[in-house]
Amino acid sequence: MFSLLVLNGPNLNLLGTREPEVYGYETLDDIVTHLSKVAEEVGSTITHRQSNHEGELIDAIHAARGVHDGIIINPGAFTHYCYALRDAITAVNLPTIEVHLSNVHAREAFRHHSVIAPVALGQITGLGSSGYEWALRALVRHLQKKR
Amino acid sequence: MFSLLVLNGPNLNLLGTREPEVYGYETLDDIVTHLSKVAEEVGSTITHRQSNHEGELIDAIHAARGVHDGIIINPGAFTHYCYALRDAITAVNLPTIEVHLSNVHAREAFRHHSVIAPVALGQITGLGSSGYEWALRALVRHLQKKR
Amino acid sequence: MFSLLVLNGPNLNLLGTREPEVYGYETLDDIVTHLSKVAEEVGSTITHRQSNHEGELIDAIHAARGVHDGIIINPGAFTHYCYALRDAITAVNLPTIEVHLSNVHAREAFRHHSVIAPVALGQITGLGSSGYEWALRALVRHLQKKR
Amino acid sequence: MFSLLVLNGPNLNLLGTREPEVYGYETLDDIVTHLSKVAEEVGSTITHRQSNHEGELIDAIHAARGVHDGIIINPGAFTHYCYALRDAITAVNLPTIEVHLSNVHAREAFRHHSVIAPVALGQITGLGSSGYEWALRALVRHLQKKR
Amino acid sequence: MFSLLVLNGPNLNLLGTREPEVYGYETLDDIVTHLSKVAEEVGSTITHRQSNHEGELIDAIHAARGVHDGIIINPGAFTHYCYALRDAITAVNLPTIEVHLSNVHAREAFRHHSVIAPVALGQITGLGSSGYEWALRALVRHLQKKR
Amino acid sequence: MFSLLVLNGPNLNLLGTREPEVYGYETLDDIVTHLSKVAEEVGSTITHRQSNHEGELIDAIHAARGVHDGIIINPGAFTHYCYALRDAITAVNLPTIEVHLSNVHAREAFRHHSVIAPVALGQITGLGSSGYEWALRALVRHLQKKR
Amino acid sequence: MFSLLVLNGPNLNLLGTREPEVYGYETLDDIVTHLSKVAEEVGSTITHRQSNHEGELIDAIHAARGVHDGIIINPGAFTHYCYALRDAITAVNLPTIEVHLSNVHAREAFRHHSVIAPVALGQITGLGSSGYEWALRALVRHLQKKR
Amino acid sequence: MFSLLVLNGPNLNLLGTREPEVYGYETLDDIVTHLSKVAEEVGSTITHRQSNHEGELIDAIHAARGVHDGIIINPGAFTHYCYALRDAITAVNLPTIEVHLSNVHAREAFRHHSVIAPVALGQITGLGSSGYEWALRALVRHLQKKR
Amino acid sequence: MFSLLVLNGPNLNLLGTREPEVYGYETLDDIVTHLSKVAEEVGSTITHRQSNHEGELIDAIHAARGVHDGIIINPGAFTHYCYALRDAITAVNLPTIEVHLSNVHAREAFRHHSVIAPVALGQITGLGSSGYEWALRALVRHLQKKR
Amino acid sequence: MFSLLVLNGPNLNLLGTREPEVYGYETLDDIVTHLSKVAEEVGSTITHRQSNHEGELIDAIHAARGVHDGIIINPGAFTHYCYALRDAITAVNLPTIEVHLSNVHAREAFRHHSVIAPVALGQITGLGSSGYEWALRALVRHLQKKR
Amino acid sequence: MFSLLVLNGPNLNLLGTREPEVYGYETLDDIVTHLSKVAEEVGSTITHRQSNHEGELIDAIHAARGVHDGIIINPGAFTHYCYALRDAITAVNLPTIEVHLSNVHAREAFRHHSVIAPVALGQITGLGSSGYEWALRALVRHLQKKR
Amino acid sequence: MFSLLVLNGPNLNLLGTREPEVYGYETLDDIVTHLSKVAEEVGSTITHRQSNHEGELIDAIHAARGVHDGIIINPGAFTHYCYALRDAITAVNLPTIEVHLSNVHAREAFRHHSVIAPVALGQITGLGSSGYEWALRALVRHLQKKR
Repeated sequence: MFSLLVLNGPNLNLLGTREPEVYGYETLDDIVTHLSKVAEEVGSTITHRQSNHEGELIDAIHAARGVHDGIIINPGAFTHYCYALRDAITAVNLPTIEVHLSNVHAREAFRHHSVIAPVALGQITGLGSSGYEWALRALVRHLQKKR
Repeated sequence: MFSLLVLNGPNLNLLGTREPEVYGYETLDDIVTHLSKVAEEVGSTITHRQSNHEGELIDAIHAARGVHDGIIINPGAFTHYCYALRDAITAVNLPTIEVHLSNVHAREAFRHHSVIAPVALGQITGLGSSGYEWALRALVRHLQKKR
Repeated sequence: MFSLLVLNGPNLNLLGTREPEVYGYETLDDIVTHLSKVAEEVGSTITHRQSNHEGELIDAIHAARGVHDGIIINPGAFTHYCYALRDAITAVNLPTIEVHLSNVHAREAFRHHSVIAPVALGQITGLGSSGYEWALRALVRHLQKKR
Repeated sequence: MFSLLVLNGPNLNLLGTREPEVYGYETLDDIVTHLSKVAEEVGSTITHRQSNHEGELIDAIHAARGVHDGIIINPGAFTHYCYALRDAITAVNLPTIEVHLSNVHAREAFRHHSVIAPVALGQITGLGSSGYEWALRALVRHLQKKR
Repeated sequence: MFSLLVLNGPNLNLLGTREPEVYGYETLDDIVTHLSKVAEEVGSTITHRQSNHEGELIDAIHAARGVHDGIIINPGAFTHYCYALRDAITAVNLPTIEVHLSNVHAREAFRHHSVIAPVALGQITGLGSSGYEWALRALVRHLQKKR
Repeated sequence: MFSLLVLNGPNLNLLGTREPEVYGYETLDDIVTHLSKVAEEVGSTITHRQSNHEGELIDAIHAARGVHDGIIINPGAFTHYCYALRDAITAVNLPTIEVHLSNVHAREAFRHHSVIAPVALGQITGLGSSGYEWALRALVRHLQKKR
Repeated sequence: MFSLLVLNGPNLNLLGTREPEVYGYETLDDIVTHLSKVAEEVGSTITHRQSNHEGELIDAIHAARGVHDGIIINPGAFTHYCYALRDAITAVNLPTIEVHLSNVHAREAFRHHSVIAPVALGQITGLGSSGYEWALRALVRHLQKKR
Repeated sequence: MFSLLVLNGPNLNLLGTREPEVYGYETLDDIVTHLSKVAEEVGSTITHRQSNHEGELIDAIHAARGVHDGIIINPGAFTHYCYALRDAITAVNLPTIEVHLSNVHAREAFRHHSVIAPVALGQITGLGSSGYEWALRALVRHLQKKR
Repeated sequence: MFSLLVLNGPNLNLLGTREPEVYGYETLDDIVTHLSKVAEEVGSTITHRQSNHEGELIDAIHAARGVHDGIIINPGAFTHYCYALRDAITAVNLPTIEVHLSNVHAREAFRHHSVIAPVALGQITGLGSSGYEWALRALVRHLQKKR
Repeated sequence: MFSLLVLNGPNLNLLGTREPEVYGYETLDDIVTHLSKVAEEVGSTITHRQSNHEGELIDAIHAARGVHDGIIINPGAFTHYCYALRDAITAVNLPTIEVHLSNVHAREAFRHHSVIAPVALGQITGLGSSGYEWALRALVRHLQKKR
Repeated sequence: MFSLLVLNGPNLNLLGTREPEVYGYETLDDIVTHLSKVAEEVGSTITHRQSNHEGELIDAIHAARGVHDGIIINPGAFTHYCYALRDAITAVNLPTIEVHLSNVHAREAFRHHSVIAPVALGQITGLGSSGYEWALRALVRHLQKKR
Repeated sequence: MFSLLVLNGPNLNLLGTREPEVYGYETLDDIVTHLSKVAEEVGSTITHRQSNHEGELIDAIHAARGVHDGIIINPGAFTHYCYALRDAITAVNLPTIEVHLSNVHAREAFRHHSVIAPVALGQITGLGSSGYEWALRALVRHLQKKR
């Protein structure tokens, strides 16, 4: 049984109300509720945290050491410039999957580049809120293989 | 009557004492006091918030939904890299005018580019502390036209 | 009492008929009439000139020395490449405010860069035809402070 | 029940023998066998095609119109320059998920950019051979929602 | 019957005498005479204007509104930097075909980029003075289809 | 009487069904039938070949030596990266006109650059399926002049 | 006697445990303890603050005015993008030395550029935890010379 | 005896009054008077023309064919973008020396590049108003050698 | 005794007839005949394959595993963009020498960069058809040393 | 006891007389005398060499092998382009600290990049002539730790 | 009476024999002899030095302090990368004119940029060996004015 | 019988001791001895020169005129920036082959570009010390053909 940290970055607290044609109509609560059920199904638990502060996400990642087995992170717009967030992931050395709801490669140029991706295990983009589920399933699969 | 949110970003709390030859001798309090009078004159009210934390500015923008009719923002140096701040403005969908005290185009190259401007209604630069007044008057004019 | 030169560059003679969804439905005459009233209100006068010829705008700026106290200019597309226009503003050394009707930062990439802005006092963009009014009021305020 | 086309591009026929420390020890046959089972589990079928020829992949995509409901594609190194492959996906207008076994963002710079991604539904990278399974499950989920 | 405006930009008045190995031996008069015959053949008329002044070309384009049905333009070297010319074409909203006598893509790098092309209907390059004829025939064909 | 090779590159076999708002409603067969009539009208013949394989287009160009007098080519997306195709045209040394149905300069940035154009006689873009006709007429005119 | 502010940015709280082959085995406490002794030796005192929040570092720099004589800062990954941090240093106008434990020039490209360095007095990189000591000694030497 | 055309571009009519610390205190009349004497001394004559209009400079260059033996041009800010001016010089095929009063390489970056220089005989920069004299003497020397 | 695969890419089948001033007058058959003799002289054998299809070259490289001891490849214009060809060489892990007949560094800019070279053993350019001979001798020498 | 080589590159022989507002008023002799005392204090010796010739610096670095334990180098302007100097440091494999008197990051853009830094142990900039002392102390500390 | 240093950089010793179609048929001795006569005519003397070693040119510039009144330098290819040479000119603070025989702006791209020019008084290019004479006359004129 | 100059640039005197895993274990003497034998075998002689001074290499190339028939040069790191060395090769107009021991394209980015290659006959990289032998044999073959 694995303990996973699910992190959501800036503006994701507005999910369901913010540009729904881009990000969908589900709220973050809907997504977390669904993720908890999936986690249970694969014998794991999730802890969720959302913040609009880069520093709080870094603190949360630091606190994950020795507590969680892996991280699922949607860094929102921090994806594109927050190298300190990247360094936090490298520092705690936990397998991390980066998720984006929309297909970032079909949007503005600044969204095409992720400073997080090079230190993540992998990345899932464009699959809407389901992307979190596939990330969770993939992370558990990965952790099972490593055992 | 309109309710406007006035946001000032990093280091603007030092106005009047920080590089006055660049930013002028008025303090932020002086500016806000003047803005309140102008707001009253055009039948509106302002709420002011200054922060050196990107996250707090994002939180303040989120909180403006359903409370304020528009935003006047001087994002300070966040102008040039804080895409999460930009996404917050897009997310709440309130008309926003970006203000800069100095003529950013006559300074260092990194100050020539704004990641906020593409999602703002407009931008006023180089007009000193009066820039806020013109932004306020322009925003009220804009809101009156939209009615 | 101040005498101000209002300059409009290429294609602005078509205002009200050219891409109104971008530039609005007011004609240049409407704008100049309104500006004259605002000028009168603040105890000033304006002289207006529109040209599609870079050379004529330069000639007009040269002729402003000793005649006008400041310049409001919407250089249209000349904004992005006409360094000679920029040099003319530097040469006559009159305070100049650059105005753009549309939010140039939300349009094609070539419109994001102004070769004029570094030598102007300031810049107002995206506020529609009202932008001229705020520029006029700001320029008068600036001239009053300099006295 | 959905019919899905699984396409693998250049050099993926060598999977299991080519740089296994990068791409893993499973062969392409292993992966396809596993995918078929997953497809069956979610009430769908897959057709698999691998080719080292850009033209054959384009022909296969064209042939998918009216036959398949969606495409899972690992374009291998074609990802980075084959605009004709991209146009083929746009032309047939079938939902397409791009898969990469390795974390392309942690490798050579030329692998960081995908010319395919902007026209795909989404992208899954760095999750090894399981990436195909998550793509399949995600594509079926997407098709179910569209119904 | 269509009325077409044929515009030639800077230095094209020297055709036949300027670098004939690049631009050919026909004079501009020869070309216009030939074009008039072709126009007559397809039941149309042309008006020709050459100028070395960007402003005059813009004025001519403005004057074409309500008078001409389409424009054939060889902007000469203005092609590569005159954004005001481009805006003029957008403003009058007449179908416009851009013509270049030489193959600009086989010459200096600065000639490879056209700021006009994105707002034109199409572009014909490298076919010598015949390029004007094909542009005329194509423009008439286009106008006939739109009816 | 001239013998001309008409080559169409990747995805052009889908013409009439692929993104008709971009590429039009005529099929490739319609276009070739029309071209044959035009060729007959100007005392020439055409041979047509479409392929989604860069290698097949190169083979076809090689085979044209001593058989055809000139080439009309729409290289589709190969336009932007297939330097081997360019070298083939240089190698056989036959006059070649490049045709694009859409105005490539008004589309994605990667479509603005042609690696073929520097070795072609000329280029026709944005004139729809008629572009082939003008290319054919221009090529015959060119060949007649060379005699 | 000088009062110095020692600031450590994001992820430096993990020193000694984070990638020790890059950053060394000493903890931040070890370093601060050593620095305090060195400060005492040169007749000065240090105040230390670490934060993963850009805003807190800016607040701390602001608070240093009138309290401290100089600043030693290791901005961690904030070095590479936090222009607001840079503006804070300029604003308080205290001599500041930037320290990096590792040789940033021998690591990823994004670490080669410091947005802080242009407003610092100087920079020490690659000398491990001793770098702080040399910065402290150098800052005291600098302050003594300025007296 | 040679007849030389001396051309001065935009803003040079203001010489002596415009930024004298950059361009010197001599007026354009002073310079032309001096140049006439030098011309006489070397048995030649000059014709002078200043314009702020690119088109007028082009027209003047065209008119020089068959009238003048060479050109001395200070294109002012047109130096940096006016490719049509460059083409005019190429078209008339007269030896041309480019002069700049100030050292353009020690000023803003946009002044470092000349689009005129590649088609000129040579360039003289930074020698103040004397630069015209050396250009005149050099041009006469060049013409004498060519005889 | 070593078995070597000699691969020639697009347009090299035209050797001797294609731009002989660039590529020389020998045909590919002449070169292969000569190479066979040299191979015999150094106790080795060669197998030759030329193709204008990237996919066929990849297939041939794959087929070389377990059959050949090394590869000599002239990828023609594929050199500059065919990353899939590069991956094929990496995948089979056979020592490979890249050969170019002409001095690619003295030709068009796009020919200066090889995507193949970073995974080859070495590269020989500009030595004409003899380049193949030196590559063959060098490859045999290399294989002898590895034994 | 360690033997250290102190190397100074081009123009540093003029220290104290060259742009003292940038580089200070101490001569190179003053600095070396001070450094010798510091070296003695920490039980080491220094050998000093200054040259304006890249080749002589390379020769001196080569000669340091087996003679010196480490290198302190201020490469002056060679810092920005002399890759051969960099290779010399790599070749002798001695710990090397790069020193710059001025804050290179606050000066012209070409001074922001060091080709030496990636192969040095570390870098000290902007601390004036004291920078050499800190480099010496740091190098001795480093050598002591390695023992 | 002024004493001038004339410096010639790499490969200029071969003048008259090296690519005479680019650099002319006069030898360096011819040029120096002529320059001496011109110097005498204007009441000055010259000292000439040619070297293929950057270090020797720097040494010669250093030695000019207190000995010569100004410098004429043709840095040859050192123009484009030798920042140490540039720093030497800044350091001795003597008025310096840069000369190039050929029109560097009409040659390879790397010759378009001079790292010397920003610290020189001015630059003369493309006027052949006469360029030295004009530089000498201009430098004497400049020195006379400064008196 | 041909006389060849073999030139080795900076740091190559350390061959066999410098980073042998990159450059091999043979010393420069070993290589020269071997080359002399090969030269004798093909009826030629070599003269060898190594220097860490760009100026000495240029002098040596100049001295080769009229003495040697061709040049083999390994410019070491000078390859990447020494345009004066390039000009020396152009100036003496002797056929020159550039050799690199390691595969420069598989190393740091700055080693991918050669400023020498465009003026050389050809280039051999990555074949270790044997590269010199193939260069020698190729140069003799080239000289024999030219006779």
